[in-house]
Amino acid sequence: MTLTLLAAEGGVDVARFFLVLATMLVGAKLLGELAERIGQPAVLGELVAGVLLGGSALAVVPTEGTAAELVHVFAELGVLLLLFEIGLETDLRQMFRVGPAALAVACVGVALPFALGYAYWALAPHPAVAGADLTTAGIFIGATLTATSVGITARVLSDLGRMNTPEARIIIGAAVIDDVLGLVILSVVSGLAAGAAVTFLGVLRTLGVAVGFLVVAVLIGRFAVPRLFDVIVRMRVRYVLLVFSIAFALGLASLASLAGSALIIGAFAAGLILSGTNQFDTIEHEVRPVASIFAPIFFVSVGASVNLSLLNPTTPAARATLLVAAALTGIAIVSKLAAGWAAPWMPFRKLVVGVGMVPRGEVGLIFADIGRRSGVLPEEVFGAVLLMVMATTFVAPPALKALFARE
Amino acid sequence: MTLTLLAAEGGVDVARFFLVLATMLVGAKLLGELAERIGQPAVLGELVAGVLLGGSALAVVPTEGTAAELVHVFAELGVLLLLFEIGLETDLRQMFRVGPAALAVACVGVALPFALGYAYWALAPHPAVAGADLTTAGIFIGATLTATSVGITARVLSDLGRMNTPEARIIIGAAVIDDVLGLVILSVVSGLAAGAAVTFLGVLRTLGVAVGFLVVAVLIGRFAVPRLFDVIVRMRVRYVLLVFSIAFALGLASLASLAGSALIIGAFAAGLILSGTNQFDTIEHEVRPVASIFAPIFFVSVGASVNLSLLNPTTPAARATLLVAAALTGIAIVSKLAAGWAAPWMPFRKLVVGVGMVPRGEVGLIFADIGRRSGVLPEEVFGAVLLMVMATTFVAPPALKALFARE
Repeated sequence: MTLTLLAAEGGVDVARFFLVLATMLVGAKLLGELAERIGQPAVLGELVAGVLLGGSALAVVPTEGTAAELVHVFAELGVLLLLFEIGLETDLRQMFRVGPAALAVACVGVALPFALGYAYWALAPHPAVAGADLTTAGIFIGATLTATSVGITARVLSDLGRMNTPEARIIIGAAVIDDVLGLVILSVVSGLAAGAAVTFLGVLRTLGVAVGFLVVAVLIGRFAVPRLFDVIVRMRVRYVLLVFSIAFALGLASLASLAGSALIIGAFAAGLILSGTNQFDTIEHEVRPVASIFAPIFFVSVGASVNLSLLNPTTPAARATLLVAAALTGIAIVSKLAAGWAAPWMPFRKLVVGVGMVPRGEVGLIFADIGRRSGVLPEEVFGAVLLMVMATTFVAPPALKALFARE
Repeated sequence: MTLTLLAAEGGVDVARFFLVLATMLVGAKLLGELAERIGQPAVLGELVAGVLLGGSALAVVPTEGTAAELVHVFAELGVLLLLFEIGLETDLRQMFRVGPAALAVACVGVALPFALGYAYWALAPHPAVAGADLTTAGIFIGATLTATSVGITARVLSDLGRMNTPEARIIIGAAVIDDVLGLVILSVVSGLAAGAAVTFLGVLRTLGVAVGFLVVAVLIGRFAVPRLFDVIVRMRVRYVLLVFSIAFALGLASLASLAGSALIIGAFAAGLILSGTNQFDTIEHEVRPVASIFAPIFFVSVGASVNLSLLNPTTPAARATLLVAAALTGIAIVSKLAAGWAAPWMPFRKLVVGVGMVPRGEVGLIFADIGRRSGVLPEEVFGAVLLMVMATTFVAPPALKALFARE
């Protein structure tokens, strides 16, 4: 009744929206489970659930109006909490300790795919896409190829019981550095999408703001926030640590955005900062379930934006998308495999590290989503990037399993 | 940057909205803490935080546009999760066991305040409020006076270490039955607000739908859902129980609303149903932190809708509001005290039970909020109801403390 009321007032139909949310959550978990059962990461299932619930299939996820904006806000909250959780799980000291090898693998693993992706788009022959600015689109394509998914990689290694091998340590270390580099690239790329011209100085300035925000926030935060939380923990109201942590992530994300960086950089910084508090274990333990409710909404809504008809191989346009997807997947795999050989001075199995770096995930999808929303990446190319992310994520787990089994 | 982008597209300013959410959360916890430190329940502090952040003071909480609708959806999610949690914590069997005494206290404790509230509004002299339909407004006023706050009462009794007294068992039992009766009244009242005429048959039909939905959902649910959750618990994806529980609450709430009952009745039923699953402990343990993030958003946004200028005693309008508030508070206290004597055949301290039933809370605020949104309760009366809720909640804890200390 409350609802009929609100709908009559011209407001949102809250009941219908909550039903959409419930369907997205159930779909994400069911297909996530199916993915795990066939030996794939759950995030793949969530993407597929989104494709099925999206506008070109069941049309459960709204695509326009206030309802679509609401889904968007919940999805943003999801990706914010996910990056906050990744930040929480990132051990700054361990990141510094894995040292030169991880850094070398990370740098090559970011630079090479970016360069190859950009070159493919700007120079190599590929099916023309109407209305795409070649340079900006090329930078976006390159960016989507850079970031290895820490979440997926770590999950696969722990599922295989190989977390304590030198290869695993290098993979995780590189993937984390990779994520930070990816977040910096995100700022540049968001600036581009907002219409900033691609000048060297402009890129440098955006880079400066992103790195500067991260460094300043983390430096001040690691000093001041643990003291603040030592006071907060003495409060008596229930779940005070959890609520203050979430508020801190929301607040720092907003500040990052208002300072000209990106929401998720702020959320990641909030996680890094809180990982230095004495109450870290409680915070991580309580934030994780909350993140696990909202993060799937992001992945489902990303999947929902795929136009299935673009992937129907009987139409020429779809064949073009599939060709681009194949080319991008090839670049994505080859360039990350090569990164395995970036630290020749250290003894470890280069191929294992290379394969471990292959899965792309959240950050790549965020890039692609920003590109699609701002119109820099046409729908066809967005579909191709999504296929690339899914393909790399499908390929790595069985390959790693086989490589470790050969020992 | 993502944000500038979205704002430029005419969408919601997500960064600014997240900053508002963060401020509401921090404000709620800080003033909630302050309330606890001076011996009052935290919910009082959250209401005061809302008044301070609201339009007539700091104006942090948006009052119009898409931002206000977003706050509203998050507040609805908060009250939905709160009622879901209350449902989870309600032991159906214990409710039947406390038996006739609790039932008698609950019935008198609902009927008497409702009748007195209605009579005061419809018959007794009180400052006139322009544009109020006397009968409908009277029913609303009566309804806001009915439901004892289980949350506050249980919290106070456990803080005093008196949960195992016969008085405490009767208070809790009656408050729970009270809450169910209150939810049924809510359906009637929501129907009225939506413009249904006040006919005896209409009230009976609305009552039938509300009770029918609750009974059918709980009967089917208690049979089928535990079997379903025994399957779900075997899934491997992370936090599958939590996510399915939340999705179940969202889904059943939507169904209740679409069936012509209220969102929160569905959420409460979802809680009652899940309290019969074998995974109940895990579910309750994981739902509680999530509810504790969103529930304060509801209380803060309720507080934010108070127009402070209405409470300034130097203006005649404000004096009228204060007079109404004083009258309502008197009725609220006297009628619940009388309910303590509703079971004369049982030996217990009637005054303790009566005082324990005095605090009004969530459900009364929900009634008042629906009345305000639909225009049935003018702003002045809404302010008076809010003052009544706050006064009853302030009065009971110290009185109970004193009564128990006299033993």
